[in-house]
Amino acid sequence: MNTRKKTEDLCRPLEIEDFTPQSAVFASPPKWHIAHTTWFFEEMILKKYVSNYKPFDDSFGYLFNSYYNSLGDRIERGHRGLITRPNIETVFEYRAYVDKAMTALLNMSESEAIKKLTILGVHHEQQHQELLLTDLKYTFSKNPINPKYVETNLVEDTYIHSGWVDVNEGIYEIGHATDNFAFDNELGRHRVFSEPFQISKSLVTNGDYIDFINDGGYENSKYWLDDGWHWLLENKIKHPLYWKQKNDQWHHYTLSGIASIKEEAILAHISFYEATAFANWSKCRLPTEFEWEIASSQLDWGRRWEWTNSAYLPYPNFKIAEGAVGEYNGKFMINQMVLRGASVATAKQHSRNTYRNFFTPNTQWQFSGIRLAK
Amino acid sequence: MNTRKKTEDLCRPLEIEDFTPQSAVFASPPKWHIAHTTWFFEEMILKKYVSNYKPFDDSFGYLFNSYYNSLGDRIERGHRGLITRPNIETVFEYRAYVDKAMTALLNMSESEAIKKLTILGVHHEQQHQELLLTDLKYTFSKNPINPKYVETNLVEDTYIHSGWVDVNEGIYEIGHATDNFAFDNELGRHRVFSEPFQISKSLVTNGDYIDFINDGGYENSKYWLDDGWHWLLENKIKHPLYWKQKNDQWHHYTLSGIASIKEEAILAHISFYEATAFANWSKCRLPTEFEWEIASSQLDWGRRWEWTNSAYLPYPNFKIAEGAVGEYNGKFMINQMVLRGASVATAKQHSRNTYRNFFTPNTQWQFSGIRLAK
Amino acid sequence: MNTRKKTEDLCRPLEIEDFTPQSAVFASPPKWHIAHTTWFFEEMILKKYVSNYKPFDDSFGYLFNSYYNSLGDRIERGHRGLITRPNIETVFEYRAYVDKAMTALLNMSESEAIKKLTILGVHHEQQHQELLLTDLKYTFSKNPINPKYVETNLVEDTYIHSGWVDVNEGIYEIGHATDNFAFDNELGRHRVFSEPFQISKSLVTNGDYIDFINDGGYENSKYWLDDGWHWLLENKIKHPLYWKQKNDQWHHYTLSGIASIKEEAILAHISFYEATAFANWSKCRLPTEFEWEIASSQLDWGRRWEWTNSAYLPYPNFKIAEGAVGEYNGKFMINQMVLRGASVATAKQHSRNTYRNFFTPNTQWQFSGIRLAK
Amino acid sequence: MNTRKKTEDLCRPLEIEDFTPQSAVFASPPKWHIAHTTWFFEEMILKKYVSNYKPFDDSFGYLFNSYYNSLGDRIERGHRGLITRPNIETVFEYRAYVDKAMTALLNMSESEAIKKLTILGVHHEQQHQELLLTDLKYTFSKNPINPKYVETNLVEDTYIHSGWVDVNEGIYEIGHATDNFAFDNELGRHRVFSEPFQISKSLVTNGDYIDFINDGGYENSKYWLDDGWHWLLENKIKHPLYWKQKNDQWHHYTLSGIASIKEEAILAHISFYEATAFANWSKCRLPTEFEWEIASSQLDWGRRWEWTNSAYLPYPNFKIAEGAVGEYNGKFMINQMVLRGASVATAKQHSRNTYRNFFTPNTQWQFSGIRLAK
Repeated sequence: MNTRKKTEDLCRPLEIEDFTPQSAVFASPPKWHIAHTTWFFEEMILKKYVSNYKPFDDSFGYLFNSYYNSLGDRIERGHRGLITRPNIETVFEYRAYVDKAMTALLNMSESEAIKKLTILGVHHEQQHQELLLTDLKYTFSKNPINPKYVETNLVEDTYIHSGWVDVNEGIYEIGHATDNFAFDNELGRHRVFSEPFQISKSLVTNGDYIDFINDGGYENSKYWLDDGWHWLLENKIKHPLYWKQKNDQWHHYTLSGIASIKEEAILAHISFYEATAFANWSKCRLPTEFEWEIASSQLDWGRRWEWTNSAYLPYPNFKIAEGAVGEYNGKFMINQMVLRGASVATAKQHSRNTYRNFFTPNTQWQFSGIRLAK
Repeated sequence: MNTRKKTEDLCRPLEIEDFTPQSAVFASPPKWHIAHTTWFFEEMILKKYVSNYKPFDDSFGYLFNSYYNSLGDRIERGHRGLITRPNIETVFEYRAYVDKAMTALLNMSESEAIKKLTILGVHHEQQHQELLLTDLKYTFSKNPINPKYVETNLVEDTYIHSGWVDVNEGIYEIGHATDNFAFDNELGRHRVFSEPFQISKSLVTNGDYIDFINDGGYENSKYWLDDGWHWLLENKIKHPLYWKQKNDQWHHYTLSGIASIKEEAILAHISFYEATAFANWSKCRLPTEFEWEIASSQLDWGRRWEWTNSAYLPYPNFKIAEGAVGEYNGKFMINQMVLRGASVATAKQHSRNTYRNFFTPNTQWQFSGIRLAK
Repeated sequence: MNTRKKTEDLCRPLEIEDFTPQSAVFASPPKWHIAHTTWFFEEMILKKYVSNYKPFDDSFGYLFNSYYNSLGDRIERGHRGLITRPNIETVFEYRAYVDKAMTALLNMSESEAIKKLTILGVHHEQQHQELLLTDLKYTFSKNPINPKYVETNLVEDTYIHSGWVDVNEGIYEIGHATDNFAFDNELGRHRVFSEPFQISKSLVTNGDYIDFINDGGYENSKYWLDDGWHWLLENKIKHPLYWKQKNDQWHHYTLSGIASIKEEAILAHISFYEATAFANWSKCRLPTEFEWEIASSQLDWGRRWEWTNSAYLPYPNFKIAEGAVGEYNGKFMINQMVLRGASVATAKQHSRNTYRNFFTPNTQWQFSGIRLAK
Repeated sequence: MNTRKKTEDLCRPLEIEDFTPQSAVFASPPKWHIAHTTWFFEEMILKKYVSNYKPFDDSFGYLFNSYYNSLGDRIERGHRGLITRPNIETVFEYRAYVDKAMTALLNMSESEAIKKLTILGVHHEQQHQELLLTDLKYTFSKNPINPKYVETNLVEDTYIHSGWVDVNEGIYEIGHATDNFAFDNELGRHRVFSEPFQISKSLVTNGDYIDFINDGGYENSKYWLDDGWHWLLENKIKHPLYWKQKNDQWHHYTLSGIASIKEEAILAHISFYEATAFANWSKCRLPTEFEWEIASSQLDWGRRWEWTNSAYLPYPNFKIAEGAVGEYNGKFMINQMVLRGASVATAKQHSRNTYRNFFTPNTQWQFSGIRLAK
């Protein structure tokens, strides 16, 4: 399967040593991503639908569970980097073993449920492909010798500002409508009324953001949400993640090492707090997720996850799935803000205008950016 | 003025020792509430509009500022309980001094701005009257000898369940419309589209909630938001704030001391996390703040702050006021959930169906309760 | 009794508001000191030796216990500042009640055990008199208006440097020898062998210490113990407690308010870490507690607690007393350093050359100073 | 050189994945130990004594510094596990490169200073060999699949109790006396007077300790130092590190996997707090480091590091070496307790009766044990 192969391709530039360590509670090791996406197929499908299925290794059900309480205990999230054994070779054997069993099952069975879960597993793996990249970047950035992962650094796409889209008031339909795959949080298509608004066609660039910095953006509490201001003070935040000033010139760590910052490239690695402060400074605001979806066909999107000013909450008619997969999305619907779009690190098939990504407002390590509205 | 007198009435049952200590970062001492509500008039009005105004004491501008960055430094929030001097007598002299100056100013001036700020100051003081009670209850509850504040404990109102209100789909207007006072966060009246819904006429009682507890509500992660489950585990939460089990019978600390819990009384002191878990267990949900406002005329409300499933975010067309009063509401619009209604501790004039109260989802010390929707 | 009266004298300058708040876990409120020293007599003597003794209030045994595990539960140490009730008047009635019962008991009984415990209780109260002052100073220092407690600030005694004492090698006896009262940790008189050493007759002055500061003492890790250096970095320590620089001139908070620092006065409010760093910078060292005791008759001591380079450990033959009083000293013999001497805040009868005071090496809030050795 | 080779032998059973992760701030990764012991020779000798020495890699001076402030910045101690690059192969090349340069230098030079530093480097490496084992054991123990490192688990040596040694009072000489290598903290040979004492010839066994557990040792505060009791409560300590109860039988994690505990084997992985509590329960005490050294020739020692009741403090006449090596020992002389002897994990040449090991009293991950005195 393409998605399975893609994960392995992403691992090709890695040294064996790169697979295990974990640099933050939120940033899992490559080995864990590889194993956990495999675990999903074994735990959610093979163990349930293949009679007499023999698991590859009984301890893996525990080792590679992420947060499914209903599937039993799991290793503490911050301890994932201590799993030096099984070694990476064994984990790739685990992948092969599960892939083979899945292929056999899919060839044999006509079950809709299995098909659905398989597709969910593929999309789940695509999510982890993106996390594998963002987590790896975070880990590498902590190494003082700034390792290079690949040649293209993913964040140098140049860019032209292209004005505003005007949207009229009206009742709009929101949420996933087609028969294609979507996560549960996108379903529950429903109507919203929107007041008229304007939304920028393009994203904020590094140059725009440097203006904000130079204008004292990080020193003036009036631009910031109160929580954001405390976050900034406590963590001594003075610029986007990975930025560093050397001889009056901004540089940043990228997946191909340290590079100087191109002003015309799109800003990345920004928290919601920073996005809001920038918007206030610009005398604009962030769009809501509904405004974003309504206007999406007229926007240039897909290179950064775009913070919206919508909290991550259930749509009317949101239904929690039965069983373990029901733990997928609903239980995170608090204290998180919605990001729309997709990023340069997102799997191609994983991008649609109803997709609801979500993170806590202090999150910087994603390829996240800013689109303004007013 | 009535509101000013009410504050003093609330203090009548207190010993001098009760005025100073602070039992949590969020729970300010009575002395601080009394001084800070006075500070508001001095700082926002007298110092600005009375030429040659002589402040009562130059250090009070610093001592009794709450969070207005634009008005200069202030004492750390958790240190408010260390202000043993000025003593309470001096603080009451400060009140009298400022009241006299305000009366003189209001008699003399026709300024709309002054009138508006005065009304804002009165509403600000009403908010702090409620906080004075909730904070005092929290502080007293930490004292092993369970001091009694007054005779009526505020939480024994009996109650009858009275069915559901049905609301049709449609476009509804939301937000403050009349000429009466409202906070900035209620303004920006706008339209929302609502899908059809049902909302309970009455609130959840202690008896309903005891059923949830007895059914293992606090031991089963499936009812809980993920953040809520971690909150519960870390803080070993097993029941609403102030509850305690003695010989198989539930008791709670109230403002008139320890009392046994009446099953037919309305539940109080519940966090958003607990409210959500209860709603999930009930196979219902919490209403959004829009549903609440739409249905409000048909509801029995005003005795508990009612958690909604709406995050505290700006209305379309929300405008931040110029100057220091602009710090009042907007900068808190993140990581908080909206509560609608009013509680038994709310000042009578301080209650309206567009009022948006807001707290973080772990907040228990308010007189907060649960209304279900579906 | 004199000691009992002395406690009440110390409270005379206080406002009612000053009695209750607690400014740090280690700094208890005046009310607590007053009640706890009374509790000692009631709990350790009256309840045990007076048949049918009626406690003043049953809840006080719990409220005013400090750390005696064997005497049951007690309120969390950091919550002592929330005991607004009983009010201070009641606590003074408690004192009078217990004093009366104690007087009756002592008039009636010839018991040696009672006499011994009473003397212990008096010395215990003298310790708390000193803590009452140091804790009060700490609490007042947190108040931005810098309240004045009394006229004399206790830390302006001028002073003349007066050379070194030479001590020969030899076997010396250490520990309490007379029949007078001593704490258990001073007993177990024993012999130590000392190599020859020199010890300063006088203490380090503010002026000496300012030289250290001006020479970069707080910026150079080589003078500091590793733990001390981390303590300094984490807490941003740049000078002794209560010091503040205004217009290039050092000031400090004292019990009579803010004062400019006299260079010729003895340094105070210094941690062991700072004392060690100063000694290293001076190319000297701190004396051990044995050296201090051996030379004590030739030293000018009694105005500052003097840090020694001895860890607080049991003497050979140290015996833990039976029962609750056995919890008095032995269980603290870890992670603390010994201070010898006495301070300007120590009760006069509470000073002897075998006394072993002890605090963790980061402690600054005592009237502590530096004596050098080499 | 043998010591260099021994380090490599210790690494033979490791998978590449095992070299990088760090399981606690105090437990460094194998790769770090290997590189840091090499760094010592490059930084302290080659860079100083070989003109035109070309470092293997300029960034390694920063990457593999431990705590030498005078040698410049270093990576945060808890981030050592993120150094996935250089990979382990490169680190072994670094070793070979430095070994070759050192061999050349030693063949060429007669310098005493170089010889001394080389010997220091060898002893430094022997210390890290032991840490490599204890750190690895700690990391492996966090892996739910309990990896096996080698066949012999190091902690099953059986043992016979063999009575007490009596020692008379007298003046004894303490500290290193011969011309052989010793660390600076052992030097400054000096006299101490000792009162008469008894010390156990043998160490406490698992069986002895299980008696303590079964007698409620972990539930009774009276055996514990106050800090130890808080440590136990906060960390929910109920047994030595690595122990686990399964079906009423004690097991422990060892370097050859999970094993049942042999009662007759010597106890290991015990903190000073536990050692003290056990000694109190036994109505004995721990020896001082002086008593241990005085009696050492009559003791069976060398299998566990033995906690003494002596704080780690300088001997009289202790001299801090000039330059970076002066940071070796002196700056840690606070808040640590001395352990004497050696353990099964100590390099053979690294064991002598004047050796002063030291750790904070909560340390469990060393092969530490208990010897009683009275």
